[in-house]
Amino acid sequence: MIINGRVMRKVLVVLVVGLGWLSAAPTYASDLRQQVDTYRAAHEADIVGQLDALTRLPSVAARPQALVIAASWLEHQLRLRGFETTQFTAKGGSPPVVFGLYNVRGAKQTVVFYAHYDGQPVTPSQWASDPFVPVMRDGPLSPTVRLVDWRHARSPFDPEWRLFGRAAADDKASIIAFLTAFDALRAMHRTPSVNLKVLWEGEEEAGSPHLAAILNDHAARLRSDLLLIGDGPEYQSGAPTLYFGARGMIGLDLTIYGPLHPLHDGHYGNWAPNPAVMAAELIASMRDSSGRILIPGFYRDVQPLTDGERTAIARLPPVGIMLRRQFGIGRTESSQGLTTSIMQPALNIRGISSGAVGATAKNAIPTKASISIDFRLVPDQTPRTVRAEVERFLTDKGWTLVSTTPDLETRLTHPRVIKIAWSSGYPGYRTDLDTPASRAVIAAAQGASGGRVALLPMMGGSVPLYLFHQVLRVPVIILPIVNYDDSQHAPNENLCLKNLWDGIDTYAAEMGKLKW
Amino acid sequence: MIINGRVMRKVLVVLVVGLGWLSAAPTYASDLRQQVDTYRAAHEADIVGQLDALTRLPSVAARPQALVIAASWLEHQLRLRGFETTQFTAKGGSPPVVFGLYNVRGAKQTVVFYAHYDGQPVTPSQWASDPFVPVMRDGPLSPTVRLVDWRHARSPFDPEWRLFGRAAADDKASIIAFLTAFDALRAMHRTPSVNLKVLWEGEEEAGSPHLAAILNDHAARLRSDLLLIGDGPEYQSGAPTLYFGARGMIGLDLTIYGPLHPLHDGHYGNWAPNPAVMAAELIASMRDSSGRILIPGFYRDVQPLTDGERTAIARLPPVGIMLRRQFGIGRTESSQGLTTSIMQPALNIRGISSGAVGATAKNAIPTKASISIDFRLVPDQTPRTVRAEVERFLTDKGWTLVSTTPDLETRLTHPRVIKIAWSSGYPGYRTDLDTPASRAVIAAAQGASGGRVALLPMMGGSVPLYLFHQVLRVPVIILPIVNYDDSQHAPNENLCLKNLWDGIDTYAAEMGKLKW
Repeated sequence: MIINGRVMRKVLVVLVVGLGWLSAAPTYASDLRQQVDTYRAAHEADIVGQLDALTRLPSVAARPQALVIAASWLEHQLRLRGFETTQFTAKGGSPPVVFGLYNVRGAKQTVVFYAHYDGQPVTPSQWASDPFVPVMRDGPLSPTVRLVDWRHARSPFDPEWRLFGRAAADDKASIIAFLTAFDALRAMHRTPSVNLKVLWEGEEEAGSPHLAAILNDHAARLRSDLLLIGDGPEYQSGAPTLYFGARGMIGLDLTIYGPLHPLHDGHYGNWAPNPAVMAAELIASMRDSSGRILIPGFYRDVQPLTDGERTAIARLPPVGIMLRRQFGIGRTESSQGLTTSIMQPALNIRGISSGAVGATAKNAIPTKASISIDFRLVPDQTPRTVRAEVERFLTDKGWTLVSTTPDLETRLTHPRVIKIAWSSGYPGYRTDLDTPASRAVIAAAQGASGGRVALLPMMGGSVPLYLFHQVLRVPVIILPIVNYDDSQHAPNENLCLKNLWDGIDTYAAEMGKLKW
Repeated sequence: MIINGRVMRKVLVVLVVGLGWLSAAPTYASDLRQQVDTYRAAHEADIVGQLDALTRLPSVAARPQALVIAASWLEHQLRLRGFETTQFTAKGGSPPVVFGLYNVRGAKQTVVFYAHYDGQPVTPSQWASDPFVPVMRDGPLSPTVRLVDWRHARSPFDPEWRLFGRAAADDKASIIAFLTAFDALRAMHRTPSVNLKVLWEGEEEAGSPHLAAILNDHAARLRSDLLLIGDGPEYQSGAPTLYFGARGMIGLDLTIYGPLHPLHDGHYGNWAPNPAVMAAELIASMRDSSGRILIPGFYRDVQPLTDGERTAIARLPPVGIMLRRQFGIGRTESSQGLTTSIMQPALNIRGISSGAVGATAKNAIPTKASISIDFRLVPDQTPRTVRAEVERFLTDKGWTLVSTTPDLETRLTHPRVIKIAWSSGYPGYRTDLDTPASRAVIAAAQGASGGRVALLPMMGGSVPLYLFHQVLRVPVIILPIVNYDDSQHAPNENLCLKNLWDGIDTYAAEMGKLKW
């Protein structure tokens, strides 16, 4: 037998793992980690094969039959592993929610593991390869990246390899990490330390329109002590990550009215009001250049961070310089650093449009200006209070608020008319890092990663954690595992193998070592 | 013979005209007006037929052969009337400029009458009828407007009728008014009081790219004492109008840069700079809500209005309330009234675009924001000084100015990067109302209209009067005749007959009664 580099690396990995295993006083958690790593090293092709198979199922909203097939595939996987299973659907129909239950004799706590098996819509023409025929590449997409024939490659796989396919990262990797962690525990004859419940949703990317109803309908079966949300990307440093909350959000579309028809801006400019100018003035009056929102009362309900939360943030490895370079930005709005910034509410301008620019610009006063805004909310802000504050602010600034296109009489009798359309929003949610459940989740994750875990009080993006908490009345913690540069929601979504490997470790710890 | 209503009206018109003619002491000018009106009343179908024929020639930039045909048609019309004619074209080719000369024995002054025979481009699908097959309607386009078979109608035509067709108003009506006025003078054996020169351009709607060269090449033949520009709409009160200048302009396209790729605004909003916000803040910093421009030095070169100009403005019939109702606006930016407002420089936002709005909005920080601006300039502002002031303002506000899309290093090392692209501009122009030539033009027009003329120091829109003045070194005055609601540059352009009738009177006076 010829010993080549790959085989030598594999031998070394096994040796290192073995040395860890044999070392005199391994901690309880790192002991588990080494066992899981050994199991994983022996099954890399099988694990990737499972993710590949699940990613091949085109479970997107546009293909409801594929959602049904994916749900059946997942239910089958749980049954193979000894879970009691069922599928929940909403009255009137919805993609199935896969529910699984694995009771452990003597376990006092029950943990629900949430993930979603649907993916964002795809525009195949924007992809470098078929979104539903996963391919492995030896790094991020670039002119020099190479395809990898992982099915014929020897283990250990290079952990920098990435599997490209829709939903490979968001959120099928979480499901495969959960299943593999369970397999690893079983292979080493270890029993989970908690009762396991699984809740795998099929319409998260469509805004979870039936989730509240399904949670309510099945609240008794979902009774538990903790909910772990397996979704979202890790902290940008690449460390295993826990988020103890997420911001809420509410969207607002504004339309500002100018003249009924475009007017020659030489003949009428500076006399007839220009809605593009009004829009600019409105935006500049709502927030300052550091992002601070100038709407009176907006921060009234904001709960300050605890000492523990501030300490956790201070301990995070810095990522600002790396991200600025990657994003090509020469400054930041806020001087507080990324994580502290996103612990605050935000007023984001998603878009503004009025008249025309560039080659199609006309010397005309536009008839209207449109602004798309999202507010990010933090505890204890609610969509209801934010709506009231924003509407009061607009009224105080002299705007007349309408909900449909104003008629001539309304335009003539009010100097500033604005149409407002709110999207349905939801509040933010944050659970304390210092509860028994939080401490247990942190300890398990730290053990699985050698203490590298990034602890973030909230995710900047919005996840309706409040909904789970409201119905199930248990702490909700997010356990994301995928690479932050996974092109989430974009073409060429991809999962880095290193993240899947780390994720298996973390899931195994949160199943096998979780106790409070 | 049955005397119906139409015939009776015609008889009455003739009687009234006749009574005017016979009245004891008609003024010199109103005497002429009555003669011209009598001539016009007898030739309404012929006059409309001439405008119809000229409008049928599709003289738009997209059809260069039609421009050549139209120029020949016009040259022929001038020859028929005894003008010496020629066509000027620029070196390298251009649509022909039709030049005509009619010398009057004993006349001391020479006046150039400028107009253009090309029209704006058309999108026929947006028209209610073929843009080059003129139709008469009994009023503005509306659900109840009716077609008029003017070829078989008896004179007098209803002066509220409108002829619909591309360039019927902008600017072929001015040409037909000139030719008809000349015909009327000739029919009554009256000699023009000045030597007449005609300059009819064929690419005004394309921005007159060869006009400067042609004026320079033929400056000797264009030698004169006054230039009358027959173009543009009348003052909104419907009174015959003279503009003693026009604002200049310069365009500016700005692009503000955010992150290299769209960023999730939940994860990065308020940390990564949002170019839509930067654009809004920039606009709000450049002008206040009354339209006052906040760029230091911007008003330094602005020449204040003279007492005579202010008096002329004060005498204008008010149009603000009518226009506000028509445009559906509940307030004005400036409190100074329309005409005073447009005597000042302006900063107009033609358009702004960043990210997406409405149904296509994404929760993302956009990569850039684009703003399209036009500045309207007044004497003695120049494009050069305005450019310098704007660029200094931007630099002082912390912007780094670039002329091409910035590279990564530029983005990383400068907090605020903006791409600026100026269009070539030109200065404004204003001649005094109180010069001998101005007084003569005013007196002639007043005589032709019974003293109703609206005198405006400048047109708000921009016309490169400076160019004529710079080359020909004579006063330049605009003599517009068409209805302000003529859908200029838009679909369904139309000319109200009343305006053509008034225009013929004015042209006849400016040919037959002009003396200083």
